[in-house]
Amino acid sequence: KKQYRIAVIPGDGIGKEVMPEGLRVLEVAAKKHGVSVQFDHFDFSSYDYYEKHGQMMPDDWKEKIGKHDAIYFGAVGWPAKIPDHVSLWGSLIKFRREFDQYVNLRPVRLMPGVPSPLANRKPGDIDFWVVRENTEGEYSSVGGRMFPDTDREFVTQQTVMTRIGVDRILKFAFELAQSRPKKHLTSATKSNGISITMPYWDERVEAMAKTFPGVKWDKYHIDILTANFVLHPDWFDVVVGSNLFGDILSDLGPACTGTIGIAPSGNINPERNFPSVFEPVHGSAPDIAGQGIANPIGMIWSGAMMFEHLGEKEAGKSIVDAIERTLAERTLRTKDLGGNADTTACGKAVAEMV
Amino acid sequence: KKQYRIAVIPGDGIGKEVMPEGLRVLEVAAKKHGVSVQFDHFDFSSYDYYEKHGQMMPDDWKEKIGKHDAIYFGAVGWPAKIPDHVSLWGSLIKFRREFDQYVNLRPVRLMPGVPSPLANRKPGDIDFWVVRENTEGEYSSVGGRMFPDTDREFVTQQTVMTRIGVDRILKFAFELAQSRPKKHLTSATKSNGISITMPYWDERVEAMAKTFPGVKWDKYHIDILTANFVLHPDWFDVVVGSNLFGDILSDLGPACTGTIGIAPSGNINPERNFPSVFEPVHGSAPDIAGQGIANPIGMIWSGAMMFEHLGEKEAGKSIVDAIERTLAERTLRTKDLGGNADTTACGKAVAEMV
Ligand SMILES: CC(C)[C@H](C(=O)O)[C@@H](O)C(=O)O
Ligand SMILES: CC(C)[C@H](C(=O)O)[C@@H](O)C(=O)O
Repeated sequence: KKQYRIAVIPGDGIGKEVMPEGLRVLEVAAKKHGVSVQFDHFDFSSYDYYEKHGQMMPDDWKEKIGKHDAIYFGAVGWPAKIPDHVSLWGSLIKFRREFDQYVNLRPVRLMPGVPSPLANRKPGDIDFWVVRENTEGEYSSVGGRMFPDTDREFVTQQTVMTRIGVDRILKFAFELAQSRPKKHLTSATKSNGISITMPYWDERVEAMAKTFPGVKWDKYHIDILTANFVLHPDWFDVVVGSNLFGDILSDLGPACTGTIGIAPSGNINPERNFPSVFEPVHGSAPDIAGQGIANPIGMIWSGAMMFEHLGEKEAGKSIVDAIERTLAERTLRTKDLGGNADTTACGKAVAEMV
Repeated sequence: KKQYRIAVIPGDGIGKEVMPEGLRVLEVAAKKHGVSVQFDHFDFSSYDYYEKHGQMMPDDWKEKIGKHDAIYFGAVGWPAKIPDHVSLWGSLIKFRREFDQYVNLRPVRLMPGVPSPLANRKPGDIDFWVVRENTEGEYSSVGGRMFPDTDREFVTQQTVMTRIGVDRILKFAFELAQSRPKKHLTSATKSNGISITMPYWDERVEAMAKTFPGVKWDKYHIDILTANFVLHPDWFDVVVGSNLFGDILSDLGPACTGTIGIAPSGNINPERNFPSVFEPVHGSAPDIAGQGIANPIGMIWSGAMMFEHLGEKEAGKSIVDAIERTLAERTLRTKDLGGNADTTACGKAVAEMV
């Protein structure tokens, strides 16, 4: 049986605190389901590393982690010490681009025992995925500035959509929709305002839909779509969007379910030509770092997604179930959820439930 | 005393049904506060007009309405009959561009008696404005497609920010913030991902802030900002964003307060070189058009904003107060708010409260 090699990168702040709990739960689930995993630890992609070396990662980072089966990532960024464009573009965004992780995947799910800001919704009502294009679109590097410091000054930045880039994310999203009971895909657009790239996106959605006759699909402009996340979160099953729209929806969705602090994410290269990155949605959280009170569930849930991506569905599912059962049992919870358990206690509780 | 000339354009669908109620209330408020208004009615900017003339507006539309003090607008668009890029770009977006209505302004306000999708919020908790840049940014006409129908196909569209365009919307937003008790401005950005235009936006915000030392300001990336609209709507006072970000926030905000069906908006040229357009946030609503059941409050509230823009603060305020009192009195409400009053009855009720 194959042994998986996982690159472990705790990163900054609470990333370092929640990582041990993620690993704890992964070890238990692996053992229980006969999954063989080797964890290799790396200290780069962190402020500490940057301070010593003047860059976020070693020159040979690709050789170091490019052959691993996946990357298990804590959190990166510490805006007070190092600008985002150095820390994020020097690690996370580099992974996305250079490992061609063109899918950013996040669940939006109302979990038992997690207070949602929405009125009158119960677990089971909201359960969908946001699929975000992760390499092109609005996050391009084409553009510039002219006539600086005059009244004529202007700045442009291009949104870029390629046939290859759009089609592959849509294919992933349609396939995901097809694999689910509701078989329903929603596309985020804004073709009534963004009149060149967005009509193209719509056109490719329509073309792709023809090859998935079993999937019902619809589309909403991003403005009313964000409104519908709040008003009708039960309408959605799989939602696909461009880099920017997906970014917005995959923060708003977890916010609506109260899970922004515990939601997981995957930056995925579906062809497995490169390792995919699994990381909690939350960042390094400098404000609470060092206190041992961070909620490790986002890290743990990301581990479940990683196992599922590797094909170890049972092991992945056992972790998600353990999280749900831990949350349903209201006695043990971290501060963000109104309790006073520490990070380790919460990690141990989930591990026991696996 | 000056007589205001208002161009009245009901447009399509429920626009035609709510307009008479808007006018009814405006007449009452005008009379009460000694405001002299003349209403000139126009049938263009509608599907009916398009059907007869093959275009949305007459060639001389600018001469016809360009000298009015304001435009009171119902709704436009009927996607099943006419594509959005014809109907919207042939009227609404034309007004914005050619009348230089560079401010799009919308209130986000929890109203008494309106069910909000958010848990545990009461009237008074949420009360802010979204200020949206309305002429440039992501809604540009620069871009195109190459290598159609091949694997090399790509499409680009530029986001364009000009010094003049960015500075004037920021100035408007800072001034609005300064005029309010909290004096707090929030800027929507995404400079960690959209790496050329958004850092420029941030730079201009910082520069403008220096000339408004009395205003406290902060900024959030658009992804977490949409999350905070749901999680912490009480944090905001005035929120300013680019054309796209403002568009999203000004639908999401009213959704969070349950007022998407009754919220007003202004497309404003602050210098009054051209008429500004005041219209409800809702569209023409083909699904309920013709039944006389549409809620006229968005139209009426837009009239209040129009009076305020014209400098008739008292008259405007009396209308907003009348709306609040009508909503607080739960017996009379239209279907969308769970009642069975028709459009006219609701309009009359508000008129009586003025
Ligand atoms: C109709 C559409 C082009 C428009 C926009 O995006 O500007 C609408 O959503 C609005 O907010 O007025
Ligand atoms: C850190 C930032 C560049 C990033 C993004 O916008 O992609 C983040 O918001 C995310 O969603 O991973």
